[in-house]
Amino acid sequence: MNLEDAARGIEKVRKQKPLVHNMTNNVVTNFTANGLLALGASPVMAYAREEAADMAKIAGALVLNIGTLSRESVESMIIAGKSANEHGVPVIFDPVGAGATPFRTESAQAIMREVKVSAIRGNAAEIANTLGEDWLIKGVDAGEGSGDRMELAKKAAKLWDTAVIITGAEDVITDGTKTYTVGNGHQLLTKVTGTGCLFTSVIGAFCAVEKDVCHAAVSAAVFYGTAAELAAEKTESRGPGSFQIEFVNQLAAVEVMDIKERGRIREVE
Amino acid sequence: MNLEDAARGIEKVRKQKPLVHNMTNNVVTNFTANGLLALGASPVMAYAREEAADMAKIAGALVLNIGTLSRESVESMIIAGKSANEHGVPVIFDPVGAGATPFRTESAQAIMREVKVSAIRGNAAEIANTLGEDWLIKGVDAGEGSGDRMELAKKAAKLWDTAVIITGAEDVITDGTKTYTVGNGHQLLTKVTGTGCLFTSVIGAFCAVEKDVCHAAVSAAVFYGTAAELAAEKTESRGPGSFQIEFVNQLAAVEVMDIKERGRIREVE
Amino acid sequence: MNLEDAARGIEKVRKQKPLVHNMTNNVVTNFTANGLLALGASPVMAYAREEAADMAKIAGALVLNIGTLSRESVESMIIAGKSANEHGVPVIFDPVGAGATPFRTESAQAIMREVKVSAIRGNAAEIANTLGEDWLIKGVDAGEGSGDRMELAKKAAKLWDTAVIITGAEDVITDGTKTYTVGNGHQLLTKVTGTGCLFTSVIGAFCAVEKDVCHAAVSAAVFYGTAAELAAEKTESRGPGSFQIEFVNQLAAVEVMDIKERGRIREVE
Repeated sequence: MNLEDAARGIEKVRKQKPLVHNMTNNVVTNFTANGLLALGASPVMAYAREEAADMAKIAGALVLNIGTLSRESVESMIIAGKSANEHGVPVIFDPVGAGATPFRTESAQAIMREVKVSAIRGNAAEIANTLGEDWLIKGVDAGEGSGDRMELAKKAAKLWDTAVIITGAEDVITDGTKTYTVGNGHQLLTKVTGTGCLFTSVIGAFCAVEKDVCHAAVSAAVFYGTAAELAAEKTESRGPGSFQIEFVNQLAAVEVMDIKERGRIREVE
Repeated sequence: MNLEDAARGIEKVRKQKPLVHNMTNNVVTNFTANGLLALGASPVMAYAREEAADMAKIAGALVLNIGTLSRESVESMIIAGKSANEHGVPVIFDPVGAGATPFRTESAQAIMREVKVSAIRGNAAEIANTLGEDWLIKGVDAGEGSGDRMELAKKAAKLWDTAVIITGAEDVITDGTKTYTVGNGHQLLTKVTGTGCLFTSVIGAFCAVEKDVCHAAVSAAVFYGTAAELAAEKTESRGPGSFQIEFVNQLAAVEVMDIKERGRIREVE
Repeated sequence: MNLEDAARGIEKVRKQKPLVHNMTNNVVTNFTANGLLALGASPVMAYAREEAADMAKIAGALVLNIGTLSRESVESMIIAGKSANEHGVPVIFDPVGAGATPFRTESAQAIMREVKVSAIRGNAAEIANTLGEDWLIKGVDAGEGSGDRMELAKKAAKLWDTAVIITGAEDVITDGTKTYTVGNGHQLLTKVTGTGCLFTSVIGAFCAVEKDVCHAAVSAAVFYGTAAELAAEKTESRGPGSFQIEFVNQLAAVEVMDIKERGRIREVE
């Protein structure tokens, strides 16, 4: 996938306005909805087991996020995930904090076992722990585990037959066959809660309009990182509060041309 | 109701600072509380069945919103609603996403059956689906169903003996006897999540200080729309993030004079 | 504790980046996480009974907040609190709305009975009602009860053997032995939802890096109030929306020097 094609992804999202069904955590739900609205998607949140399957099947993508999980919410996510699987709706999974507690690790693994996931996005520790490998994690933030992120991503992608997105200073994106890195983004993203969770939902929006999940994720990453860079340039001297607001502005404002100018995509191997 | 009287509603809210008990969805709860605080009301959120009745009875208004409903939360809402009914506290209902899934439609209808609601606010699809009529809905956003919004509002108002507020480019407000349209507002409201939900809570604040529910809703609508217009004029070129923040500023800043200058109320028939 | 020492507290937080486990209400969860991130701490939210104990024991502080309590969430809080007690993790408690409903009052008292709390923070009505004394409360806002806030704080501190922070125009902070007032802050804090709740979590962050809880709370109060003053000076003419964003900026920006210039700490008796 070249930069030109990656940059054009946002056009499709804005044109098709896909419905993205989010089952996410209560810390980021407002920011997620506003971020998706800003970039042109149509967010919906629905958690109840009584409606999870019905909402998932009419969505363009289903996003599962265990940031503030409960036993009930994980059950609902699995119900929604199975419904999405049956109806050909891509499922994007964010195993927030996998490794931080046994309950999170087990729940992440249960979701991966029960639901066919199109893409999984996390930091290296979360992906490793979901895979059953030890990797130090501090709360829900990436720990200081060592290891090769690219090897980890490929291993996970092959084992689960899914696209894997490991975010960090540089994002690694692979479906096990093709592998990319995306170098866009900004350090201020780590100072605003939910920027990782929102990114997972943004990947969902792109997957709803682009069949190749790996390409959709690359397209989402270069768009998202460009928006962050532009927001930081406008507000860096002011602080994380101003950055967050301007980031939402930029999700609405970023054009294909901006992405083409700034995009830093590299295909590996 | 003339514009002069409608414009004065916000003065009463700011003077009396009514307690508004919100049982709302987890996407908008922070925005709702901040919006109500900004305009001068006193918000409280309380969901547990063990306290729903106790909180509702001391409130100036009770707002029920099924945006992220569960079986338990609907039960709590009905408990709170019955308590409000017993104690003469007006109940305002927002049937978010009615029609999107059977569970939402049934829950919205159960609330309307069990609780005597003073006002119901939604887009045309939500009101129609709560009424048992088909109307296309996309997630929780208004769908493209056709039909006469004014006829729908009047029909619902008469059937339920309640005020009905159908929001859209132009708001329709009726109690079945008198009917108004309010033309204030701005397209950017559709780019910020929860602006409809907050509006429902704002109607609650106005109902707490004005006995005629239809007049309270008109007063709330012209105030809310004016705030949106002023916010958009200040921030439109920047984007939805900036608009949201300025909108909260304007809820605090809008004066009776601003409303009188801009208010677009029309009595129908 | 002199101003110089109090002002230096934020340096320790920024250096150690303590993990703060928040079990808080769904109105303020995003604002709490962003506030803690801005000032340099590492927030995590985890509510499920299956993981509450595991998360609490690895945290630098545990914050319990009953703003939108349920029977289940109170049970989880007690599980987490006991785990924190066993592992020497300080527990900070915010009895939001104690006195507003019997369920809140009883739940606040149950937590105080079951968990050894290092500090409790509330307005005068909340502290009094948790203590079993009547004090008028309006929703979750401070009521107009009369009584001597300083006497109330000392009485509570001695009874519970804990630090007590009663916030208001002037904060009263005592551990029963030493007592301080902190005069920093700004009226606009009352116009943004969750500024009290976030303050409780900020006290948690300071308690994670400073053994004397009373000193940690004084240090947190003078830092927090200074950030509010600086934010208000920059945005007061614009409104509560702008103030909230700038307040987050200032939590990141405030330096020891700012606190030393503005700090208004008074030791009593």
